Amino acid sequence: MENFKEKLTRVEAFVFDVDGVFTDGGLVPLADDDFLRTYYARDGYAVTYAISEGYRIYIITGGRGENLRHRFEKLKVTGFHPNVGDKCAVLREIAAGEGFDLANTVYMGDDIPDLDVMRMTGIPVCPADACHEVLEASVYVSQYPGGKGCVRDIIEQVLRAQGKWLRHTIGMHTV
Amino acid sequence: MENFKEKLTRVEAFVFDVDGVFTDGGLVPLADDDFLRTYYARDGYAVTYAISEGYRIYIITGGRGENLRHRFEKLKVTGFHPNVGDKCAVLREIAAGEGFDLANTVYMGDDIPDLDVMRMTGIPVCPADACHEVLEASVYVSQYPGGKGCVRDIIEQVLRAQGKWLRHTIGMHTV
Amino acid sequence: MENFKEKLTRVEAFVFDVDGVFTDGGLVPLADDDFLRTYYARDGYAVTYAISEGYRIYIITGGRGENLRHRFEKLKVTGFHPNVGDKCAVLREIAAGEGFDLANTVYMGDDIPDLDVMRMTGIPVCPADACHEVLEASVYVSQYPGGKGCVRDIIEQVLRAQGKWLRHTIGMHTV
Amino acid sequence: MENFKEKLTRVEAFVFDVDGVFTDGGLVPLADDDFLRTYYARDGYAVTYAISEGYRIYIITGGRGENLRHRFEKLKVTGFHPNVGDKCAVLREIAAGEGFDLANTVYMGDDIPDLDVMRMTGIPVCPADACHEVLEASVYVSQYPGGKGCVRDIIEQVLRAQGKWLRHTIGMHTV
Repeated sequence: MENFKEKLTRVEAFVFDVDGVFTDGGLVPLADDDFLRTYYARDGYAVTYAISEGYRIYIITGGRGENLRHRFEKLKVTGFHPNVGDKCAVLREIAAGEGFDLANTVYMGDDIPDLDVMRMTGIPVCPADACHEVLEASVYVSQYPGGKGCVRDIIEQVLRAQGKWLRHTIGMHTV
Repeated sequence: MENFKEKLTRVEAFVFDVDGVFTDGGLVPLADDDFLRTYYARDGYAVTYAISEGYRIYIITGGRGENLRHRFEKLKVTGFHPNVGDKCAVLREIAAGEGFDLANTVYMGDDIPDLDVMRMTGIPVCPADACHEVLEASVYVSQYPGGKGCVRDIIEQVLRAQGKWLRHTIGMHTV
Repeated sequence: MENFKEKLTRVEAFVFDVDGVFTDGGLVPLADDDFLRTYYARDGYAVTYAISEGYRIYIITGGRGENLRHRFEKLKVTGFHPNVGDKCAVLREIAAGEGFDLANTVYMGDDIPDLDVMRMTGIPVCPADACHEVLEASVYVSQYPGGKGCVRDIIEQVLRAQGKWLRHTIGMHTV
Repeated sequence: MENFKEKLTRVEAFVFDVDGVFTDGGLVPLADDDFLRTYYARDGYAVTYAISEGYRIYIITGGRGENLRHRFEKLKVTGFHPNVGDKCAVLREIAAGEGFDLANTVYMGDDIPDLDVMRMTGIPVCPADACHEVLEASVYVSQYPGGKGCVRDIIEQVLRAQGKWLRHTIGMHTV
């Protein structure tokens, strides 16, 4: 059976949930129907760097709001899918349309709505503080919790395994 | 004497305080008389799921503000009662009007204004970081503090005890 | 020499710094020259309760902004003094004008600008995470850090020592 | 070989990154292209105090936004350089233009975009929670993490080593 380090060498795409993964799960609802969310600068650096190295990064989230959309447009992710009820259907459609292999895809989520879609991908992973059902469904649990480096951790691990991490260290703008 | 697990099997309604329960007690006052509060996405999921399974969920809080109202309207809780001075009077009226038994009701609070109303309900519970008087008045202390999963914890425990947890895992929107 | 518990029995006034005491020291500056600050609901309860029991509560802070002013006006503190450079001068004037004894006054601060004024009062105290100079200058260090209950702690200790804590438990609005 | 305490005695300038140093790395993106960031009041005190004692303090960051600019204008730092891609080029130009020695300069950063510029200065330091590459590149790791006192810590250590800390304790306004 293939181990986790071997799996990392063939990753071609990343799919991330937002709340509890890019954030610590904290949501500040505003009366105008938007939310404030707190992201982590070092996660943003990793996303920007991975995209510059040619990786596909998709966001599939039940979350919504203009602030959320703005964040991921600025990060220039490959695909941004907010307000999603059935994450499996959305991921199946993306993979078919864009022609990448779900067996070589990392999915990082933290809660029940991620369980089914995690089982569809070859490399389901999660933050240190995911809910217990997701911890059990993951092949790797980051030592970092949501919003404090779990996104950076999995991206860094994949890029290291493929010899792509730290090939350039010129500063990147916070996006 | 009935133990906690037995009590869980007959819960029909939940009543929650907000500050210190749905949040970590943090309040960001704005000059326009409203507040920002930080909720936890996984608590929101549990509330939405429990309501979809037919449970009654009431909010009774001394808190106020449009952002607060908006949060709980979006969560579609059974009843939302902000700006409450005497929580006992409000809960007595709700239970009488809507015909459920306070003996089969969970109340989760964290501070002095919750003490009297906790004693009115059959199943008073609290977050890990409730004030010491509330810790003593509770039949169950969640391992999770306010704003980091105590709401999810008690809902999940009740629904598990009644065979209702994880009956469907399709994603739900963050509300 | 009088011990701390004895001192508590004769407290008639409280003076608090804001940043690092009512908050964890976190400041969110806005471009319009105001700030967001995160307060703790249980501290607010204690302030409101102490005032209802007749205690004097003064705020003396180097901080400024409309959100700050709004918070303490809503809490109906006895005196609110923002934007203060020389805290000693301000406190001396308040005590002289309102006729209370600095020997029977609690001062809670967390940082260098609090050092001189702490030495003027009979009962200088601080949060668990005050700077080391303030920790040394205090007769009592709360087990709670700034923004997570140190204000509640010292108020509760004084009111307990004077038989005033929990004389009524009717809920109070979050202010 | 010169030890860290000896290096401190000849510091004449400080250069700081922002995200992960003045903050815990948390970023709240707003749809209008600005961000909320949470600073630490005690760091602000140290910056203001050091400037009043004649030290040079420069900010070089990949971050941007009006709220950011406002913060550092109010702190009256010697130089504020946002939106920087190549931190080395900017620092080289500042040092040449203003005539101070990079060998006697502290640089505090937390992430990959800080690595090259850290190697240009005589005294590269970092917060407790810097990324592992930065931890390795530092001559001193503060016991305080980003946004919770690492800026204060390095400023205080330099000023103590030079006999400048706590020469006056009159309160300073939170800026």
